[in-house]
Amino acid sequence: MHVTSEQRFDDDVLEREFILDGIPGFLWTPESASASAPAPLIVISPPPLGLDKMYPRLAGRARYYAAEYGFAVATIELPGSGDRPRLAVLDQARADLRRTVEAGEPVSGEIVDALILPLVEKAVPEWRATLDALLARPEIGGPVGYEGGIISIGVRLAAIEPRIAAAGLFAGSFVPATIVEEAREVTVPLQVLLQWDDEGNDRQAALDLFDAFGSREKTLHANMGGHTGVPKFELDAGARFFARHLK
Amino acid sequence: MHVTSEQRFDDDVLEREFILDGIPGFLWTPESASASAPAPLIVISPPPLGLDKMYPRLAGRARYYAAEYGFAVATIELPGSGDRPRLAVLDQARADLRRTVEAGEPVSGEIVDALILPLVEKAVPEWRATLDALLARPEIGGPVGYEGGIISIGVRLAAIEPRIAAAGLFAGSFVPATIVEEAREVTVPLQVLLQWDDEGNDRQAALDLFDAFGSREKTLHANMGGHTGVPKFELDAGARFFARHLK
Repeated sequence: MHVTSEQRFDDDVLEREFILDGIPGFLWTPESASASAPAPLIVISPPPLGLDKMYPRLAGRARYYAAEYGFAVATIELPGSGDRPRLAVLDQARADLRRTVEAGEPVSGEIVDALILPLVEKAVPEWRATLDALLARPEIGGPVGYEGGIISIGVRLAAIEPRIAAAGLFAGSFVPATIVEEAREVTVPLQVLLQWDDEGNDRQAALDLFDAFGSREKTLHANMGGHTGVPKFELDAGARFFARHLK
Repeated sequence: MHVTSEQRFDDDVLEREFILDGIPGFLWTPESASASAPAPLIVISPPPLGLDKMYPRLAGRARYYAAEYGFAVATIELPGSGDRPRLAVLDQARADLRRTVEAGEPVSGEIVDALILPLVEKAVPEWRATLDALLARPEIGGPVGYEGGIISIGVRLAAIEPRIAAAGLFAGSFVPATIVEEAREVTVPLQVLLQWDDEGNDRQAALDLFDAFGSREKTLHANMGGHTGVPKFELDAGARFFARHLK
């Protein structure tokens, strides 16, 4: 993990930009984090829009978690996003999706698989290697909370990575059928956000996925509005969910 | 409002038992409540099991709201419950329901109407008169939050009583079709609890009722487990919902 820049903000949160195995990322830690009092870690998997574009929203969440609740927070660029090399298979799948939607046709399971599965296959091992590097730092401790936008990545990671102790997920569209099956293997506490009128998300499919998770403690927070309309108060509700399970 | 007994607890919450127009009730107020700093009010409509039986749970919630968030909290006995005169129409409807369930038959709309509508007709005006009495006290101020178990009472009250500024509802079974229509008239912020595996509650009917509410801000908190299995953390989530809207 090679730190390329760092700055400390008024809220006593230290932000470090880093490169790990060629993948850019950010780490935010509260002043209180130290080798004798390591901060529990929340990792945020971003949407596939590039870290540059997502920075204000990610940094806002991360600094709130760090400053108000004492968490360390990290994010890394998704495969094929931002400045990382494009993935031909994803570009092809996105072009197919665009054509299908513009033609007013239903999005097939094949397109969903092609859009999501290559991303899951690449992103999950990257997240596991990133956990290795982050948890090796003296000021960061386990257990780990996962939060992220592409729900399929969170499902796979929560199902197979034992260091993930709780997950805050965002019910998004386009979940491959194999991922719905993997959701049955997830047993950690979950808090799932659902936007009730999400234009790109089938409500019943989201409820079915919520139902499929194997976790004994799982909570669905459904709010009014479209995909980008998650109410501000869910930020604190998310932090309190992680505080219950990571502290 | 005739206070029949009072006691102050270690948490500096004052509990008063009262009788108002022949209806028994409880009022809990934090030490901080005064004429110069009146406490916002939360009213809790209890389940139809009698205040005696419900006292531990009600007092636990109320004292948490009062001690931790500075709310005044009140409850009154439902019509036909506890020591209040029985209501023949309700007794009849409950006997019909019992027979229907024991016979394994579906519960008809007629039975639901007979079970719920007489209770709504009587309870809602009683709650409005109770608000008059409570809000006349110098240490209690508006706006008012409503919370309660029989969701139909909450729907009617939130739809017609302008002093109700926010409502925390528990998605229960047996909602008359007319009440679902009234839900469209409700516009105040809502937080609705749904127990995902509620043995006496049809999940789809609960989701449909949530969908029907006219409120622009409404949040559904769905949790695992049966009717009585609401997780402890929802107590604080409810308090924070009211704190956002009543303070």
